Amino acid sequence: MRLANSPPPWLVGRLRPPQHMSSNMANIDEVVSHIDRNIEQSIERLFDLLRIESISTDPAYAAECRRAADWLTEELNRLGFQATTRDTIGHPMVVAHYEPPDCAGDVAHVLFYGHYDVQPVDPVDLWDTPPFEPQRVSSNGTERIVARGSADDKGQLMTFLEASRAWLDVTGALPLKITILFEGEEESGSKSLGPFLDEFGDELKADVALVCDTNMWDAETPGITTRLRGLLMDEVVVTGPAMDLHSGYYGGVAHNPIHILSRIIASLHDDDGRVAVSGFYDGVDPVPADVERQWSALDFDEDAFVSDIGQTSQSGETGSGALEKVWARPTCDVNGIIGGYTGEGTKTVIPSIASAKISFRLVGRQDPETIREAFREHVRGRLPEGCTVDFISHKGSAAIEIPVDNAHLSKAAAALEAEFGTAAVMLGGGGSIPIVRSFRHVLGMDSLLIGFGLGDDRIHSPNEKYNLSSYHRGARSWARIIDCLSS
Amino acid sequence: MRLANSPPPWLVGRLRPPQHMSSNMANIDEVVSHIDRNIEQSIERLFDLLRIESISTDPAYAAECRRAADWLTEELNRLGFQATTRDTIGHPMVVAHYEPPDCAGDVAHVLFYGHYDVQPVDPVDLWDTPPFEPQRVSSNGTERIVARGSADDKGQLMTFLEASRAWLDVTGALPLKITILFEGEEESGSKSLGPFLDEFGDELKADVALVCDTNMWDAETPGITTRLRGLLMDEVVVTGPAMDLHSGYYGGVAHNPIHILSRIIASLHDDDGRVAVSGFYDGVDPVPADVERQWSALDFDEDAFVSDIGQTSQSGETGSGALEKVWARPTCDVNGIIGGYTGEGTKTVIPSIASAKISFRLVGRQDPETIREAFREHVRGRLPEGCTVDFISHKGSAAIEIPVDNAHLSKAAAALEAEFGTAAVMLGGGGSIPIVRSFRHVLGMDSLLIGFGLGDDRIHSPNEKYNLSSYHRGARSWARIIDCLSS
Repeated sequence: MRLANSPPPWLVGRLRPPQHMSSNMANIDEVVSHIDRNIEQSIERLFDLLRIESISTDPAYAAECRRAADWLTEELNRLGFQATTRDTIGHPMVVAHYEPPDCAGDVAHVLFYGHYDVQPVDPVDLWDTPPFEPQRVSSNGTERIVARGSADDKGQLMTFLEASRAWLDVTGALPLKITILFEGEEESGSKSLGPFLDEFGDELKADVALVCDTNMWDAETPGITTRLRGLLMDEVVVTGPAMDLHSGYYGGVAHNPIHILSRIIASLHDDDGRVAVSGFYDGVDPVPADVERQWSALDFDEDAFVSDIGQTSQSGETGSGALEKVWARPTCDVNGIIGGYTGEGTKTVIPSIASAKISFRLVGRQDPETIREAFREHVRGRLPEGCTVDFISHKGSAAIEIPVDNAHLSKAAAALEAEFGTAAVMLGGGGSIPIVRSFRHVLGMDSLLIGFGLGDDRIHSPNEKYNLSSYHRGARSWARIIDCLSS
Repeated sequence: MRLANSPPPWLVGRLRPPQHMSSNMANIDEVVSHIDRNIEQSIERLFDLLRIESISTDPAYAAECRRAADWLTEELNRLGFQATTRDTIGHPMVVAHYEPPDCAGDVAHVLFYGHYDVQPVDPVDLWDTPPFEPQRVSSNGTERIVARGSADDKGQLMTFLEASRAWLDVTGALPLKITILFEGEEESGSKSLGPFLDEFGDELKADVALVCDTNMWDAETPGITTRLRGLLMDEVVVTGPAMDLHSGYYGGVAHNPIHILSRIIASLHDDDGRVAVSGFYDGVDPVPADVERQWSALDFDEDAFVSDIGQTSQSGETGSGALEKVWARPTCDVNGIIGGYTGEGTKTVIPSIASAKISFRLVGRQDPETIREAFREHVRGRLPEGCTVDFISHKGSAAIEIPVDNAHLSKAAAALEAEFGTAAVMLGGGGSIPIVRSFRHVLGMDSLLIGFGLGDDRIHSPNEKYNLSSYHRGARSWARIIDCLSS
């Protein structure tokens, strides 16, 4: 039995003593202690949310998505926010507002974003426990919360609610003006988000957005994600002969579209692994020296990164390290290819068409539509006479780079260092988080991407988990960030 | 109304007068006249066979396959052959024997081969008339028999039966010892053929095989197919990372197997369209000058050949004409490729594997297994460190080239010239006819590939047809070939 007021055993020896660097040092020490004392109840609340089967992509779970939204709305209202569930063309949004009492009007205003929807659970037979029956599982001294959505993103968004709850419980108020936006379609294309931001942008706009859907560097090192690669996707359909042909009767004369497409794909990279589309590197800058120094200091284990995916060597540009490649270099990957006969056995066909889905990860000031056009010219220039190509446009978005010298970021970094005793690392992110672009371009506001996930959380996969320490220190971190941003 | 003894109107002006070059000139004139006089009954018999739905690949039609075999057996017995339907591990074979009365023992012995099974009829809604209700359709002065199997191969095999019938009706005997083999699995892999030839080879062996499953050069020019390309098929499965990866998190570091496979495929041909596998052209000889002269004299319309398949240019080796490419040059074609996400929309995946089915058409003395090994070495030499490849072996068979200076071929060519008034062309064939290899290697006998199909017969497709003139002149041709081979 553990005394209610002592820190839980998995944090003993890992929690920093009070650092006396906050604007409100007495308050913040009490707030984080309150989080420690009430961690069991915090976990229970998270479990309630995890039990709701809010799979957004499957219409069969629409009522569960609404139930999750309503659960959050009720929880926020109980805390003292003005929260409502808002209907959209898809699953509902949760919007909540908090304004400190006796607010002089010049208090900082933040928008906190998370998503309550989760990925499907297939293949369900690979789960060790039912995905919507959250479990606490301990091994090797690490306690984990196992459930669909534990890390992506219910556990993460709840860290902010629990931090807010502690502030309100201890001091009776939050020191910031806070707007909350919880989305229910992040895992299924966010189709309602654009129209919603267009309609309610004025209501949602704040000084800065706090987005909690990313990882730490490792369990002991907090991170702020400041670089997200952009993404451009295009689909190529090459037509050779007008109909499928017998390779015996036409082989040697017919233009085989699989050959044409393969030559095109082979031509997309040069011998140094660089993308060979004309003008592709326009707007790509070297990583700034200070960022590079920080990344070097991380002592990233490239060999483990590569061997974890079953490789003994790296692809990509010669001369770049693996971290730089996935965080700061643009890439081109074919995500799918199909043509001709692909069933069992053989068929001596020369197909009429072959197609590929191709994506580019973009960085810096690379412009998606300029690159789309250059790519298409590259393809058109490699067609034999009389062969044709059709393109199917898929989405394009430019990279995001958040300036590391902004005041909000510095304050959040100080708060994270206070919690972890280790400087927060400015992380890159290989993937894209479109909401960040929308906040910038629709609402004119930068985002701070701060999350407490870990690389082994198995998001989107069976046995998704969120470490109990991620949940606990996440709540403590937000409590400190709220404190620092208010100063 | 046409008098029974006059030639049918579609042949008036096209039939050669008696040539006085046969060994048996009075007989042969009477035999072909008999064919002319009885063409309507010949057509009725073919229609009876065409009405049987002998689709071999679909087990639902097994009884129909047997019915077709029994129909042929009965017909052959009625003619005076000793015919039986023979059970196999698949659909039955028909074997029939004829020996001339008063045979001195030194009479020539031929094995005639055809197949009674047909392709499926899908897509059935593209047929203008029901596929198993044969029709006579006239347009542009050409009368056609429209039905599944009319050209492939029921119409063709019946030309030999009708020629035999005319000989027997007119002279009371055939001047050759004849064995007949009708197969019921040619369209579905011929799985019974090997075991059957092994078991009954002695019974089937003759001086020469007559295979009636090929085309003429055109409606006025007979052909003997003397070259068939061989075929080697292999399947390549490239593995990059050990599992499917998110292209955002691993793009730039992960080895994308679609890229690797595309580079391999691109490397299979050089800039001149030649196959770039080491040693590939070993055993490939230039086309003999006399054959090349004959092909040149055909005045083949390459532009029409290319534009018929919707192309404005040719693939393949620079410096070779289209006929040479499909008849006498080896090729390499990818018949299928698949990897990654191939559904609607997009998925930012780097797949673990990508695979392709690759086939080589072979000529001359190219050895399939030597080339398979050279190909696999070619592939292995192009893998990034740590990536792997698996191969799935599919069948390989060398090319067939029948010497054009053999006596049987000369006699058949003379007979065809007598019928058409035009020298028979020694044709190449882009595809493979495995039975010809089996006759050579299992039974030690060469084949004469003589057929009366045309390029526009739409075999394997909806609205398959066989020209009435193909049927009629095919029967007349076999009557003359039987005559010439007996001399």
